[in-house]
Amino acid sequence: MSKLSKEDIEKKLLRFPDWEYFDEAIHAEFEFESFKDCFSAMSRIAFECEALNHHPEWTNVYNVLNISLSTHEADGVTNKDFKLAEAIDAIVVPEDED
Amino acid sequence: MSKLSKEDIEKKLLRFPDWEYFDEAIHAEFEFESFKDCFSAMSRIAFECEALNHHPEWTNVYNVLNISLSTHEADGVTNKDFKLAEAIDAIVVPEDED
Repeated sequence: MSKLSKEDIEKKLLRFPDWEYFDEAIHAEFEFESFKDCFSAMSRIAFECEALNHHPEWTNVYNVLNISLSTHEADGVTNKDFKLAEAIDAIVVPEDED
Repeated sequence: MSKLSKEDIEKKLLRFPDWEYFDEAIHAEFEFESFKDCFSAMSRIAFECEALNHHPEWTNVYNVLNISLSTHEADGVTNKDFKLAEAIDAIVVPEDED
C-alpha cells in the first residue's frame, strides 16, 4: 500500500466534503446531539476498523469526535484511509447530506 | 463543585499512581493488548461517564488510550474528576495492581 500524492489526495477528497488533508493525514470533526450519540457512532466505527484492520487516531470530548486517518507503514495517506473514511461517513453522515 | 488546589490534587493523586496533574487536568495513559481490548474498556468507561454525568477528553490510537479529566465549569480539577478517575481505574487496572 503506497502513499498517495498530495494531488491524488485532494482529488479524492472532493468526494469527502467533511475531511481535509494536512500533516500527512486526513482529518474530520463530527458533532452529535449528545455523548451517547457520539459514543454510539464510535462503537459502530470501531467494528469497521476491526473489519478493515485499520485504525484511527481519534479524540472525543462530550459530543464532538475528531478523527485523523493515516497509514503508519506508508508514512502518509493511502487508499486504506479513504476506505475507512468512506465507512465512517456511511455511519455518521445523515443520509440526506450523503 | 469548586476547583481543588494543587496541593489537594497532589495529595489525592497518591492514591492514583497512573494519573498525573498538569495543565489544570489529571491525565493517564493506558495500554491494552489490542484495539478490541482498548475499545471494550472505553465502552465500559462510557457507561460510567453517563452515570456520573461527567465526560473525559480522551484519545485512542490502536491499543493506547489517553484520558484527561477536568471540570469545565470550575476551570480546573474537582472531586468529580477524581470520582471518574476512580471508576476508570476500577475498569482498566488489573486487580493485582489495584
